[in-house]
Amino acid sequence: MLFPTEFDVIVVGGGHAGTEAALASARMGQKTLLLTHNIETLGQMSCNPSIGGIGKGHLVKEVDAMGGAMAIATDEAGIQFRILNSSKGPAVRATRAQADRILYKQAIRSRLENQPNLWLFQQAVDDLMVEGDRVVGAVTQVGIQFRGRAVVLTAGTFLDGKIHVGLNNYAAGRAGDPPAVSLSARLKELKLPQGRLKTGTPPRIDGRSIDFSRLAEQPGDLDPVPVFSVLGNTAMHPRQVPCWVTHTNARTHDVIRGGLDRSPMYTGVIEGVGPRYCPSIEDKIHRFADKESHQIFLEPEGLTTNEFYPNGISTSLPFDVQLELVRSMVGLENAHILRPGYAIEYDYFDPRGLRASLETRAIQGLFFAGQINGTTGYEEAAAQGMLAGLNAALQTQGREAWTPRRDEAYLGVLVDDLITQGVAEPYRMFTSRAEFRLSLREDNADMRLTEIGRKLGCVSDRQWQMFEEKREAVSREIERLKSTWVSPRLIADAESERVLGKAIEREYNLADLLRRPNVDYQKLMTMQSIDGKKFTAEQTLPDAVREQIEIQLKYAGYIDRQAKEVERHEHFENLKLPPELDYMQVKALSMEVRQKLNKHQPETLGQASRIAGVTPAAISLLLVHLKKGGFREFASVPASPAAA
Amino acid sequence: MLFPTEFDVIVVGGGHAGTEAALASARMGQKTLLLTHNIETLGQMSCNPSIGGIGKGHLVKEVDAMGGAMAIATDEAGIQFRILNSSKGPAVRATRAQADRILYKQAIRSRLENQPNLWLFQQAVDDLMVEGDRVVGAVTQVGIQFRGRAVVLTAGTFLDGKIHVGLNNYAAGRAGDPPAVSLSARLKELKLPQGRLKTGTPPRIDGRSIDFSRLAEQPGDLDPVPVFSVLGNTAMHPRQVPCWVTHTNARTHDVIRGGLDRSPMYTGVIEGVGPRYCPSIEDKIHRFADKESHQIFLEPEGLTTNEFYPNGISTSLPFDVQLELVRSMVGLENAHILRPGYAIEYDYFDPRGLRASLETRAIQGLFFAGQINGTTGYEEAAAQGMLAGLNAALQTQGREAWTPRRDEAYLGVLVDDLITQGVAEPYRMFTSRAEFRLSLREDNADMRLTEIGRKLGCVSDRQWQMFEEKREAVSREIERLKSTWVSPRLIADAESERVLGKAIEREYNLADLLRRPNVDYQKLMTMQSIDGKKFTAEQTLPDAVREQIEIQLKYAGYIDRQAKEVERHEHFENLKLPPELDYMQVKALSMEVRQKLNKHQPETLGQASRIAGVTPAAISLLLVHLKKGGFREFASVPASPAAA
Repeated sequence: MLFPTEFDVIVVGGGHAGTEAALASARMGQKTLLLTHNIETLGQMSCNPSIGGIGKGHLVKEVDAMGGAMAIATDEAGIQFRILNSSKGPAVRATRAQADRILYKQAIRSRLENQPNLWLFQQAVDDLMVEGDRVVGAVTQVGIQFRGRAVVLTAGTFLDGKIHVGLNNYAAGRAGDPPAVSLSARLKELKLPQGRLKTGTPPRIDGRSIDFSRLAEQPGDLDPVPVFSVLGNTAMHPRQVPCWVTHTNARTHDVIRGGLDRSPMYTGVIEGVGPRYCPSIEDKIHRFADKESHQIFLEPEGLTTNEFYPNGISTSLPFDVQLELVRSMVGLENAHILRPGYAIEYDYFDPRGLRASLETRAIQGLFFAGQINGTTGYEEAAAQGMLAGLNAALQTQGREAWTPRRDEAYLGVLVDDLITQGVAEPYRMFTSRAEFRLSLREDNADMRLTEIGRKLGCVSDRQWQMFEEKREAVSREIERLKSTWVSPRLIADAESERVLGKAIEREYNLADLLRRPNVDYQKLMTMQSIDGKKFTAEQTLPDAVREQIEIQLKYAGYIDRQAKEVERHEHFENLKLPPELDYMQVKALSMEVRQKLNKHQPETLGQASRIAGVTPAAISLLLVHLKKGGFREFASVPASPAAA
Repeated sequence: MLFPTEFDVIVVGGGHAGTEAALASARMGQKTLLLTHNIETLGQMSCNPSIGGIGKGHLVKEVDAMGGAMAIATDEAGIQFRILNSSKGPAVRATRAQADRILYKQAIRSRLENQPNLWLFQQAVDDLMVEGDRVVGAVTQVGIQFRGRAVVLTAGTFLDGKIHVGLNNYAAGRAGDPPAVSLSARLKELKLPQGRLKTGTPPRIDGRSIDFSRLAEQPGDLDPVPVFSVLGNTAMHPRQVPCWVTHTNARTHDVIRGGLDRSPMYTGVIEGVGPRYCPSIEDKIHRFADKESHQIFLEPEGLTTNEFYPNGISTSLPFDVQLELVRSMVGLENAHILRPGYAIEYDYFDPRGLRASLETRAIQGLFFAGQINGTTGYEEAAAQGMLAGLNAALQTQGREAWTPRRDEAYLGVLVDDLITQGVAEPYRMFTSRAEFRLSLREDNADMRLTEIGRKLGCVSDRQWQMFEEKREAVSREIERLKSTWVSPRLIADAESERVLGKAIEREYNLADLLRRPNVDYQKLMTMQSIDGKKFTAEQTLPDAVREQIEIQLKYAGYIDRQAKEVERHEHFENLKLPPELDYMQVKALSMEVRQKLNKHQPETLGQASRIAGVTPAAISLLLVHLKKGGFREFASVPASPAAA
């Protein structure tokens, strides 16, 4: 049957990608349908009970800056928060939280259920409706046809999913969930380039069987407890609890090596490639053979459960080996495993088949987000989901797609990496992937993106108002600091020594003083003049405003330099390549480069430059061709990006 | 691999039956393993969000009296409580609660996780391990072999489960969950007598799309809010909310009739028989064709969700018909369906193949509980689960099974009905199934069973202490009432008229006065003598104690009469039939009766008498045979139960 309502955007899948996609599209005012095989699993954390971390926390804050759910849900569900790299520069500082799985699910589900313009429907999707080269809807397991003008597919590990434990395997989308076999088959008929990847998860342990007295405790940051969302606060956080640390040892490693002959990875049973940066324990033992021990974090799965997640021992070894390797570790001698670890193989689609909007090139209106694009991680999925949902909404509004640049957002880096480089293994985010990471900080995610989000239409009035207040407070205070002058006549030497470490020898404004390495805003504000005058702002500033002022002033030199670099690159980066260009005719290029460009059809010169095997020299030759060929936009550009 | 620990009892399945089975066995001190395909779905309410009701509430209170979880979990999760039939006699009064699904799951899971002697393990079970005619364990989907001395199988609707929506169908254990296909096939190889049943569930509705202003509100009992468990109290209850009422109408019925040609039930696609007393809406329209309207309750699914459960429109009609029939009702004109209704077909096993302990006759140590035995309902499942877990534990302790009698518990009625009559359709409990229902009240479930439970070992110290205090308080107070005498000289006429409705004409004890129809305990205790003396107890008595006193005194006549009846029947009822008896040799019996007795191998004369086709006359003939045959226990019994 044909469902009587036509939707603007249909989102298939209710994980981290699907959730953000559906919410973003609905926030944009588009009539949105979220199809999930099971409403009970909306927002389920299938693997580790944590959100954020270096690179990943950045993505979460970007999603938050655009009005997304992951950060605020984490604030409502987080049972341990930490700022990683807190002693390092602001670019690599990142927020990470342990989440109570049940509270997290509840936070997500209640947002989905209460989002205006969003309808939920429970049923597995077996097919897409395609007319010509355009998607027009999705068909469920019992043949209900939902028409939609755009479809966002976020299938996670469900497409033809296959779980491996040792040499045993069975079809599943995730432990306990059925796989999506029919949809996988139908997508294969669409002839999109695709392959298989694998990911894995560790066995889970009954906390009643752990000897915590033998483990090191790892508390979170407690004073203050960090907050993830710009709309969040510490009062939202549930009770905070510690993690625990144990280690693998020589016996653990022996046990693992002894099981490799029954490992599905080492015997070739698994064809899919696993994530290099989130490897299984057998992979780690194998690749870092000289390392005698690995740290294993025991993370609580929630406040109302005894389950623990042993972060660091993802494995698909046979269950007897899992049991022995777990019990070989200190504190886990009598551990009871509640759920076995496993690997899962699933279909993904070559993301080089996507536009920067995450729309597939082959089928108009069809967007992909999350693991289906070859990524791994909740945060990577959420970020793509938000982008795909947003662009699906924009498309159905007849507006142009939003494609964040690499110097604008980690989201831009992520998508650009995916669509230009493709993936050979599940892709995860790192700060090292961003060439402009001084600009792409967690702390300025809102400054970078919220105004864009507001213009696009996915940022709420409340968030926008809070953002404007913050932005104004920051610039007002920076102006005040810049225009407030102190001189040796005004400040006693002893006082400057107390606050600044030494007496001031000439007139300075407060902004200059704050730039000094050992001076922070709070201390500076304690400074008093000879006649008892203080230099504080009229109103107490929120922490986030103070932090922003400090970072903007202290790192101004670096940031400005990067901004100039960005500007230089920007012109080339965004130069749109003519879609009608036939690369095979660009004789100056090697056949290999011509074929690559022809295959990938980059949208911009920047994208072209990042295709593996396309050298800077080739880009210069291409530019020359375009200038000569009379492509108008290229007439006035210099011959090489390097020369810019 | 063989799991290194051997368990006493292995429970397969984590629904209402499996939960109570695992908890009961573990409370008995037996090393117990609960195997579930998904820890996240432990305690899931697959159908209606409510517990209890007439007959069913009785079962819940019995499980509670034996230390089980369902009642106390409902106290922690219940968002609306009512006493049904509160104006009728105490035998048919029953408690019913709406439960918040998420809170209920949490209450159950936290009990399972924290129960000593109970281990949980997540993985679907594909096979049983059988040696000779004895079960010795279970094998999971990836080949992990768990050895156990007894196994309780509670597979619900998962065995070869098949979901139907209109003429479409697919394999599933429940919406969103994979079916148990391998286990079904393996059980078929064991050649246990089996068949197919079906059950169904209605579509779920988004509360945001319901026009509540057009509906009648149905609040719960609020003063006081009822409590389910003897260990519960109103302070445990979450916020209380109302249900809502709408009705089917002529258009609804037209819509349904118009869809019957695509109904899997009416076109013969579904082979399994559905529950007569919980029929689908198409069944109701068909069977009660002259009824113009049916009442439909819209039950909230929880405090944190907008989902509503429309109780009364379970259906497997095609989705377009579902949508139209829902929207034909007042208040639901714009209803959005979140999950389609569906029917599910599944394997069950003929319960006549079970002993009264719920152990299968064919395979020693293998117990069945719940829908696998052909029942329907959470409460029926929980009661059987508790009994099966208890008896599995007793067996592994080398102790005799506990098999409650029909005059002792609804649980006794339930099991006896199942094993003697078998089922032709899913069996649900009613008070009318109990011949001794004056004795089998909700209010005295603890008085009937807690002492037994304590002796068996499944009642906690705390519950036992509370029970003893209550029992003592009741009998102490009844003694006091019986021995406290009032006379016309002691009480002014005006005072007796106020309290009793008329002056007393002679001496009475307080117990006698309380038996009067219009006198209740509370009012009686306000009575004052001429010299200002009151007749109250030394301490204020809890509500449950007062209630018990009133019922015991007020209904003493009926109850005593039933007790005598019970006694008369009891001897015959429990007369154990010699297992070596060859019924084919009892020539006095008709061939039909001989064959039936031979097939069913009843354990007691009572069971024999309830086999369909076995007449009272046949029972008398059998008795004569046994007396003559020198079976010792039968030498002195009268020739007929009727004569007793």
